[in-house]
Amino acid sequence: MAKTVRFHELGGPEVLKVEEVEIGEPGKGELRIRVDAIGLNRAEALFRAGFYFYQPTLPASGIGYEASGTVDAVGDGVDGFVPGDAVSTIPAFYMNEYATYGEQVIVPAAAAVRRQEGIDAVTSAAVWIAYTTAYGMLVEIGQIGAGDTVLITAASSSVGLAAIQIANHLGAIPIATTRTSDKKQQLLQAGAAHVIATEEEDLVTRVRALTGDGGVELAVDAIGGAGVHTVVSSVVRGGTLVLYGALDPSPMPLPFADDGRGRNIRWYYFAELTLDQPQQLRRAELFINAGLRSGSLSPVIDRTFDLDDVVEAHRYLESNAQVGKIVLTVRH
Amino acid sequence: MAKTVRFHELGGPEVLKVEEVEIGEPGKGELRIRVDAIGLNRAEALFRAGFYFYQPTLPASGIGYEASGTVDAVGDGVDGFVPGDAVSTIPAFYMNEYATYGEQVIVPAAAAVRRQEGIDAVTSAAVWIAYTTAYGMLVEIGQIGAGDTVLITAASSSVGLAAIQIANHLGAIPIATTRTSDKKQQLLQAGAAHVIATEEEDLVTRVRALTGDGGVELAVDAIGGAGVHTVVSSVVRGGTLVLYGALDPSPMPLPFADDGRGRNIRWYYFAELTLDQPQQLRRAELFINAGLRSGSLSPVIDRTFDLDDVVEAHRYLESNAQVGKIVLTVRH
Repeated sequence: MAKTVRFHELGGPEVLKVEEVEIGEPGKGELRIRVDAIGLNRAEALFRAGFYFYQPTLPASGIGYEASGTVDAVGDGVDGFVPGDAVSTIPAFYMNEYATYGEQVIVPAAAAVRRQEGIDAVTSAAVWIAYTTAYGMLVEIGQIGAGDTVLITAASSSVGLAAIQIANHLGAIPIATTRTSDKKQQLLQAGAAHVIATEEEDLVTRVRALTGDGGVELAVDAIGGAGVHTVVSSVVRGGTLVLYGALDPSPMPLPFADDGRGRNIRWYYFAELTLDQPQQLRRAELFINAGLRSGSLSPVIDRTFDLDDVVEAHRYLESNAQVGKIVLTVRH
Repeated sequence: MAKTVRFHELGGPEVLKVEEVEIGEPGKGELRIRVDAIGLNRAEALFRAGFYFYQPTLPASGIGYEASGTVDAVGDGVDGFVPGDAVSTIPAFYMNEYATYGEQVIVPAAAAVRRQEGIDAVTSAAVWIAYTTAYGMLVEIGQIGAGDTVLITAASSSVGLAAIQIANHLGAIPIATTRTSDKKQQLLQAGAAHVIATEEEDLVTRVRALTGDGGVELAVDAIGGAGVHTVVSSVVRGGTLVLYGALDPSPMPLPFADDGRGRNIRWYYFAELTLDQPQQLRRAELFINAGLRSGSLSPVIDRTFDLDDVVEAHRYLESNAQVGKIVLTVRH
């Protein structure tokens, strides 16, 4: 029996229950992992509430995409992992099939990566969604290079901070947005070249001033809603806006820039890379591990909670008070 | 004095008036053209009604992007043209600055191209908006190649027919849509590999069947509105939808495909190429002239009207009864 977070109805953080569940043995192509730490993501809050783009399988659903720990059993047909290996999970599955919030979890072996030497369990649990998402948007789709400017909205999220680091790693110029000045210093310390407080300054005017009137080559936006029009108007003609979230639930019209000229608009979901594109995923792993080794990529951890306090952790996740990742830790 | 079409108020076709206007001499960098034929475009109907993305300068506005004719005067600083040259215009200006509906018109020399040998005046007036728009979408943005499938909505428009021909020219497979079966045979004769009547068949089902379930690599859509969701769901994961019109005035939500995976969405306006990108325009000219010479590109002319019948011609333009281009002819 192992402590496992499950929910039996859709709703707020309070629907999450810590239950003792028999985990069993890993099947063909699966690993069982003794979990040390679990990274939290907004996708999980949406999934719990029934607002994610696929639905949990009730009456009892697990939850979670990210964990770090140690392999403790290996299913048939799995090459390359043995019990005792330190691993992290990448989000290469659906949460109604596999889940990571628990002391012991089973995941597909294809969703496990070896942990880098010298990176602790909490940090290892905070890497893979944020950095594969940011890598996919900035490198595979945006193809940004040195000297390009990148606008990053909701920049204090774990994906936003990963995007800032990847932009800097490549010699590009990250411009971060945040609603008020409260998080400005933290974002500058996290590597943003410029920070724009969108409730206090005009986004398009600031971006044009910073880019010599042209706009950014790439914008990555987690907010969506009616504000997309402003974001797209901050992009240079022919540049790209990648949308990867819809924190603002207001209707999102197809955004045309004021000048009548086109921009590329791309909806992005991390599983495009982690599930659909094995070669992209392999490149992402190499890129991210290289950055972790050199230290140029380094997840920002905002706060940790004990697994037993998962309800409180989800409340904090939805408060938008954090800068960086929230992680659950598991005491053994 | 020369017959010139002008309008003094926004409205339906009837606001267009044929008036005698003194044209004067071409200024610096301009040509004066004795016009033989004038290609009509939906952009002009929108401009006349006040629905285009820029407004006419009233109380008297000219209108028109395309004409073919003969240079009859050359302004200062113009190289490469002399009186007597047979030319056509490309839409490299705004209609509140220059216009082409008239017996004699002045345009920027940068908006003139030499007519190909053996191509008559009516055909020459029907080339440049349709083929530069289709070329920009299929070649410069879509980068389609042999074997790719391309979905072309509202395919009986002049741009739609040009897109069919360019797809065939490159060894790609054009799938045309039209509302009912009425124009099906004409579209097959015009080169469509497949025709889907969208009011009689399910677009996504047909496209998936034709493409082995994946969807098309590129869709070019002039319709927009709520139907964009269906068009985007006909595009393969990671493929591209280029929107170049909004014939359907219903709200156009940012379209996400049902599977949660991203597609590239691109608003396109022909002046991105003809006004903003001289190198793309040069490539477009070479590409289109090569196709005109070999005959693989050949504008479809639906019907011609006399310049005096411009009101009737605009009514017909807005009837959606045509397959291909409507052209005004000028008697001298």
